[in-house]
Amino acid sequence: MDELRSHLSGSWQSGTGEPQILYNPATEEAVATCCATGLDLEAGLDFARREGGSALRKLSLAQRGQLLQTLASTIHEHREALIELAISNGGNTRSDAKFDIDGASATLSYYAGLAAAKGDAMVHEDGEMLQLGQSRRFVGRHAWLPRNGVAVLINAFNFPAWGFGEKAACALLAGMPIVVKPATSTACVAARLVEIAVDKMPAGTLSSVVGSAHVLPTLLGYQDVISFTGSSQTAGRLRALPQVASGAVRLNVEADSLNAAVLGPDIEAGSDTYNMFLRDVSREMTQKAGQKCTAIRRVFTSSAIRERVRDDLVERLGAVRVGNPAAAGVKMGPVATAQQRGDVLAGIEVLASQTRKVFGSEHAELVGTQDGKGYFVPITLLESDTPDVPGVHDDEVFGPVATLMGGVDDAATAGTWVAKGQGGLVCSIYTDDRSYAGAMLAEVGPHHGRVMFASTKIADQAPSPGTVLPSMNHGGPGRAGGGEELGGWYGTGLYAQRVAVQGDRGMLDAMLGKATS
Amino acid sequence: MDELRSHLSGSWQSGTGEPQILYNPATEEAVATCCATGLDLEAGLDFARREGGSALRKLSLAQRGQLLQTLASTIHEHREALIELAISNGGNTRSDAKFDIDGASATLSYYAGLAAAKGDAMVHEDGEMLQLGQSRRFVGRHAWLPRNGVAVLINAFNFPAWGFGEKAACALLAGMPIVVKPATSTACVAARLVEIAVDKMPAGTLSSVVGSAHVLPTLLGYQDVISFTGSSQTAGRLRALPQVASGAVRLNVEADSLNAAVLGPDIEAGSDTYNMFLRDVSREMTQKAGQKCTAIRRVFTSSAIRERVRDDLVERLGAVRVGNPAAAGVKMGPVATAQQRGDVLAGIEVLASQTRKVFGSEHAELVGTQDGKGYFVPITLLESDTPDVPGVHDDEVFGPVATLMGGVDDAATAGTWVAKGQGGLVCSIYTDDRSYAGAMLAEVGPHHGRVMFASTKIADQAPSPGTVLPSMNHGGPGRAGGGEELGGWYGTGLYAQRVAVQGDRGMLDAMLGKATS
Repeated sequence: MDELRSHLSGSWQSGTGEPQILYNPATEEAVATCCATGLDLEAGLDFARREGGSALRKLSLAQRGQLLQTLASTIHEHREALIELAISNGGNTRSDAKFDIDGASATLSYYAGLAAAKGDAMVHEDGEMLQLGQSRRFVGRHAWLPRNGVAVLINAFNFPAWGFGEKAACALLAGMPIVVKPATSTACVAARLVEIAVDKMPAGTLSSVVGSAHVLPTLLGYQDVISFTGSSQTAGRLRALPQVASGAVRLNVEADSLNAAVLGPDIEAGSDTYNMFLRDVSREMTQKAGQKCTAIRRVFTSSAIRERVRDDLVERLGAVRVGNPAAAGVKMGPVATAQQRGDVLAGIEVLASQTRKVFGSEHAELVGTQDGKGYFVPITLLESDTPDVPGVHDDEVFGPVATLMGGVDDAATAGTWVAKGQGGLVCSIYTDDRSYAGAMLAEVGPHHGRVMFASTKIADQAPSPGTVLPSMNHGGPGRAGGGEELGGWYGTGLYAQRVAVQGDRGMLDAMLGKATS
Repeated sequence: MDELRSHLSGSWQSGTGEPQILYNPATEEAVATCCATGLDLEAGLDFARREGGSALRKLSLAQRGQLLQTLASTIHEHREALIELAISNGGNTRSDAKFDIDGASATLSYYAGLAAAKGDAMVHEDGEMLQLGQSRRFVGRHAWLPRNGVAVLINAFNFPAWGFGEKAACALLAGMPIVVKPATSTACVAARLVEIAVDKMPAGTLSSVVGSAHVLPTLLGYQDVISFTGSSQTAGRLRALPQVASGAVRLNVEADSLNAAVLGPDIEAGSDTYNMFLRDVSREMTQKAGQKCTAIRRVFTSSAIRERVRDDLVERLGAVRVGNPAAAGVKMGPVATAQQRGDVLAGIEVLASQTRKVFGSEHAELVGTQDGKGYFVPITLLESDTPDVPGVHDDEVFGPVATLMGGVDDAATAGTWVAKGQGGLVCSIYTDDRSYAGAMLAEVGPHHGRVMFASTKIADQAPSPGTVLPSMNHGGPGRAGGGEELGGWYGTGLYAQRVAVQGDRGMLDAMLGKATS
């Protein structure tokens, strides 16, 4: 069985405690072990700060971009092997795996492109040179300077590749060395990513800790950064750490989200936008078995169309073959762990007590599985005549589960109920009515990091709303954690200090072109 | 004696508890009372969210800018009365008071100008329209939408006018109603500001709570914002509130800072840059009796020039007349409260035990004071041969106190010791050497929100580094709180949600020009 090692202080290291075991969630077979107990994390962090940080700060933005392109190309070269690992350790279908792995390389390539456009610049400037005094001589300009610490990238179990890629791209481009801390249960992909990439990176710029390591965040200091994706419970524990609560360690959180899809009252059944809506809802419910922070959990329609939507969704969901993703024809695999399975089933029970269950695939045949093994949960569609279903707006059930609610006939009603999610990552509005769209942006905008307007004109080319694009903000207020990731250069800000530089024009011109450590 | 009332739910309100008393810090005479106990804060917050928020969201950016210009003009019209209040309740000299009050109107005017340039736009867009799909039809763009709550502006005692102006400008322009919570001890100026301005503002957009109100932040929800300036202790209490720790209420902190001034090894005594350095250090030490978050606390020089600097500073500091700011010729008043006086004297004692006291004005005559009354503290310059003085880099003594340290002969040494401040608002570097300047930017940049390079070319026009300009970032990492304020449009981001809007080009073009609630 594979032992997944950590890479710290420039070398591969094994923990000294009881190994943790990683499973194939479709078969419950053990596939790998890992252990982070006993690792010298402090030395590893110091090595990253010292060697990795100084190496990155000596590189121009374009040179950092070349590192990102190397990472992207390396991932692409090892794509088939990574897909196999995602299937065996993540319960991913081949399509799920590609979404994750190609997402990682595409995001890294996107940032490599942003960086290349900066040429030889050593400093990422922000905005124009501003005249501050009576004459043109006294000026000011903002510059993003990399924090002098280490960025600890704590990723969720659902996107071991993309989660790595999106955080790594922003941190490395900003000029911060990274320590990757993947979720243990699905760490095979992330561990392999580090293995194939680490020798192509300057020493100390890429490290990893594989296995539980609760002490890791407590070893950080005021120039360090934590970029966290995961549950709001864990986020709360991180926020409560003295290092974070004092304002010293900078923390970005991407947590829970009860993403909503709203079918505009103008959309008629059978239209392009209607079909896009059906496609998106069913895809978001079943892709990665619904284990996406951006998956659609709440579906709002008018009363008039609700039954038709329900029938059409039930038909689509019924066509999704569930089973071992290694078997042919399987379109949805299991959830990642036994724990997740228990949580999702319990969540379904709570929601079902307040709604009608109109689709549950528990009676369908599981393809390619044996002896009742595997962490499978049924695709579940719940329905309510009105949106007044408390649990639906409060409990994120992290699996192939959504609730369809009618009685949402205008923008004000839709806005009120969407907002009950108390902050989300993405909301999608299906409409061809510009006035309705404008009203919905005002209603739901402040509650989300991203709003997708799906209309006839883009029905042939827009991805479903759960697809996170590197040029667009990813994050959201409130329940979603209050963080921001990606969105082009914006995403690098977490890893840098925005400094207002004031002085004489000649000095600033000279300095901002070449500041290095 | 004046009773300072609060303005909530559209009307003037008095508390029902024991009044708190505000003093003239130069005479210890009572000047006003206030009380926030028993106010219906929840109703006031709801009124602001509902009435004020919806009023602001209906205004274009330029119209919000007109409100800011009205505030600026109103402050300017009442300038003389406000100066009198700053003298009698703040211990400000006339010059100190103008710095605060004119700073408020200038900042509001600056933001009014930014807003005017946006014309009829209803939404503050961020960046270009980006093509997201295969064709030009599917695009994305970022927009800043006002959070749907209320912004509570908690200000420090040292800048009752400017602190109000800089926070109010950003919040109102972003589209959030504000509740002003001035520090109680010097609340006369802020209370008067609200009094003269409130009838010129749409109902609910401007409210105030005058007097201690520890419960106020606990009444906030996930679309609300706290913008806090004050001690790191209070900041820690705010961060620990469940509403904040959960990530729901957004909090910006501007806290302590041990700002450093570094005299470059290239600067010769008697040169323009040297004289600028002396002017700035002595001004920052004594303006507002050193009660500025941006005041210079640590002064670094080479060993060669340290004694000359000390003698020149002592000469300048000796010329500063201390006393009742209402008396003619007084250049420095008392600190704001008896508590502050006690804290500053205790802080001086700690620092003096690790250094040499080379100037202390305690033996100078206090002008215009009586019977030993008034919260005066001596201007104090401490000196050390080397920067290896632990307390100097850890303890912010919030009064007219600085420590001069020699042994800082190159950029690497300067960088190391400046960084021991663990995050500051501003660092100033006095040099005409571009290569040294570049090295210093890399060394100190990540530890500050602002770095000022003072050189011969701007010696005739640059303000001292403690002057915060609205176009430049104000805030800093670590000890300084990790926040960001001002810096042009950037400063409005605290009060808004940055939303990635995706859809078809025509829809986005139509929508981002007119989204209202």
